[in-house]
Amino acid sequence: MIDVEELRDCYTKTPSKIVLLVADGLGGLAHPDTGKSELETAYTPNLDALAQESACGLTTPVLPGVAPGSGPGHLALFGYDPLKHQIGRGALEALGIEVELQPGDVAARGNFCTVDSAGLLVDRRAGRIPTELSRPICERLDKIELSGGEVDVFSVQDYRFVARFRGYNLSAELSETDPQVSGVEALMVKPLRPDAQKTAAMVNEFVSKAALMMLEEERANMLLLRGFAKMPSLPPMGEVYRLNPAAIAAYPMYRGLATVAGMKVIPTGRTFADEVETLRENWDKHDFFFIHYKPADAAGEDGDFDAKVQRLEELDPFIPAIRALNPDVLMVAGDHATPAIMAAHSWHPVPFMLNSKLTRGEGVPTFDERACALGAIGRIPATSVMVLGLSHAGKMNKFGP
Amino acid sequence: MIDVEELRDCYTKTPSKIVLLVADGLGGLAHPDTGKSELETAYTPNLDALAQESACGLTTPVLPGVAPGSGPGHLALFGYDPLKHQIGRGALEALGIEVELQPGDVAARGNFCTVDSAGLLVDRRAGRIPTELSRPICERLDKIELSGGEVDVFSVQDYRFVARFRGYNLSAELSETDPQVSGVEALMVKPLRPDAQKTAAMVNEFVSKAALMMLEEERANMLLLRGFAKMPSLPPMGEVYRLNPAAIAAYPMYRGLATVAGMKVIPTGRTFADEVETLRENWDKHDFFFIHYKPADAAGEDGDFDAKVQRLEELDPFIPAIRALNPDVLMVAGDHATPAIMAAHSWHPVPFMLNSKLTRGEGVPTFDERACALGAIGRIPATSVMVLGLSHAGKMNKFGP
Repeated sequence: MIDVEELRDCYTKTPSKIVLLVADGLGGLAHPDTGKSELETAYTPNLDALAQESACGLTTPVLPGVAPGSGPGHLALFGYDPLKHQIGRGALEALGIEVELQPGDVAARGNFCTVDSAGLLVDRRAGRIPTELSRPICERLDKIELSGGEVDVFSVQDYRFVARFRGYNLSAELSETDPQVSGVEALMVKPLRPDAQKTAAMVNEFVSKAALMMLEEERANMLLLRGFAKMPSLPPMGEVYRLNPAAIAAYPMYRGLATVAGMKVIPTGRTFADEVETLRENWDKHDFFFIHYKPADAAGEDGDFDAKVQRLEELDPFIPAIRALNPDVLMVAGDHATPAIMAAHSWHPVPFMLNSKLTRGEGVPTFDERACALGAIGRIPATSVMVLGLSHAGKMNKFGP
Repeated sequence: MIDVEELRDCYTKTPSKIVLLVADGLGGLAHPDTGKSELETAYTPNLDALAQESACGLTTPVLPGVAPGSGPGHLALFGYDPLKHQIGRGALEALGIEVELQPGDVAARGNFCTVDSAGLLVDRRAGRIPTELSRPICERLDKIELSGGEVDVFSVQDYRFVARFRGYNLSAELSETDPQVSGVEALMVKPLRPDAQKTAAMVNEFVSKAALMMLEEERANMLLLRGFAKMPSLPPMGEVYRLNPAAIAAYPMYRGLATVAGMKVIPTGRTFADEVETLRENWDKHDFFFIHYKPADAAGEDGDFDAKVQRLEELDPFIPAIRALNPDVLMVAGDHATPAIMAAHSWHPVPFMLNSKLTRGEGVPTFDERACALGAIGRIPATSVMVLGLSHAGKMNKFGP
């Protein structure tokens, strides 16, 4: 698997333009009644027409058999080895609500929970308390002052929040406070390395001050912290690939992932139609665009086969609008499969196609798992997608003399 | 990707014989009018007949999307990880004219150039001065004596030459003198690491003495040096694979690459017919033969689709002569694709076939990109070719107990 910097000397700047359309959770598995996957079932004449003129294949997100989260799924497509550049849960949670993490900040995923009078956990999710009730608590906790640094508390949804710790020389090498079972006390944070001692003390100070503040709450009278993480520091895509890359995504987490990779995030609306319009308006300003389509993944995660088929059919009509911009390279990829019959992310190889003037005669009849498996590109690691895009766009010099 | 030494304990000596026929620039892309690649267009009944009895596949020279130069393209086929064993431009240029590089020697690719009276570059290629005029200058420069070691100057062609520096403890970690633009002075060589200081001084001494000697020349009145490199030191194929390997190549660069890999180079003539005759004459003396066919690549680089088709058709009649020697394994491979529509090396996977008594029933109808994509071998890194050849020839023991 290639990592972003390995071929650094090959990348070269040209005016050509690349579009990477990521259909989240694109791949699927056959429905037991029909033997056809979501993509095989969907009526997608524009994706199929594109596949006929494209080089097609399947991408392996991380490694065979490994189902990735959104973080590694996208980082791989951007060319970063997802085993080498890992994003912790706290950092991803922060990205998901666009909480800024500066270098050195430590973020944790927080749960409100319910404890009894003896301090033993009764409900690790505080009865899934709604956001209207949890947000005011977050606002109060946000005012907590710590001796070793600062803490900020951001409401996510229901019983979930993000705690961001900021200070000098903090470490994310901390044990979690969630014991994962009821009937016991929440754990103290322990340093996992000697230099994390100060941060552990700071987090424990936050937890005890917060517990005091929540004493009178009925359900959310305690909190649990896990997934302590800093934002990984990645070599920026623009610098490494010699691109001026932009991201267009309706969902905050994907904007966050693009930011981590060093892309410029262009503000857009809430729908994919908004995203395509944003692409059109900004066409002259960048040479690489990552544009994200979310709905297919959500339907897959819900286990709703028909809805996922429909979401794919709703993507299809936008293909001509993107092609009309005449990109030198148009790639359609997925960060991972989300087979509706699994109602979860999966490890299955994901259909991929790359269209450029150098892919004539390499097409397959339809854009789906089975046809792409026979495509000219074959099976490649997702980390090779960027390199393929760059080379087809004339943005890569020969390797070696 | 496997590197040559990783399976060292598996290789075993047997009398069986392997032929690796490398058709340079073998792979291609479809012609826009016909939708057929060069191989698909060419009438190659002997290659097709061989494909029907062979295991077929596609090789990825370096990594998906990476177009290799001749150096990494061939090293990969010989089993060396081309990312790990890199050949610098100066070293490859030296190989191309069979200039011997001993361990420790530093070679540079040289250009004659034209400067004006103020020393500013007017033409970085000295008006592409012909070899008749540049060779005598090389002969004069070759006599330059340096305080820190020796320099030898070898004419290549037109305005190009090779400078070889020899001395104690030289380093190739030097900046280049070619500023890549006109209107400025040639640069001084700078050491890129502290231990390269002595070599930098030596090279600068050469450049200033040479400039004085060329003062009266009309066009070639200055020189530029780039691609400082030592010859990489590779584990010799014969020792690692327990082979007695030989190379037969009409073009010097490929003889040089074979020498770097530790093969014995057998003198041959200028045509592929000469090479096949050399193979026949030396059949009893070696157990591994690398035989190189150049013309298809040259036609591809010229962007001449029809000529490339013809060069492939001219290779075809030699296949029966090679098969008549009854090799235990016959492999036909390419170091990279050279699609005529690109007029350049490319990154596309390259057709590959391996014939042995262990590949019956594994064939595909024709030897081309599309058919090989569906072959029994699938897509493999080019670095796996040697291991496949050795195992099919019974030259590899089981890995692990």
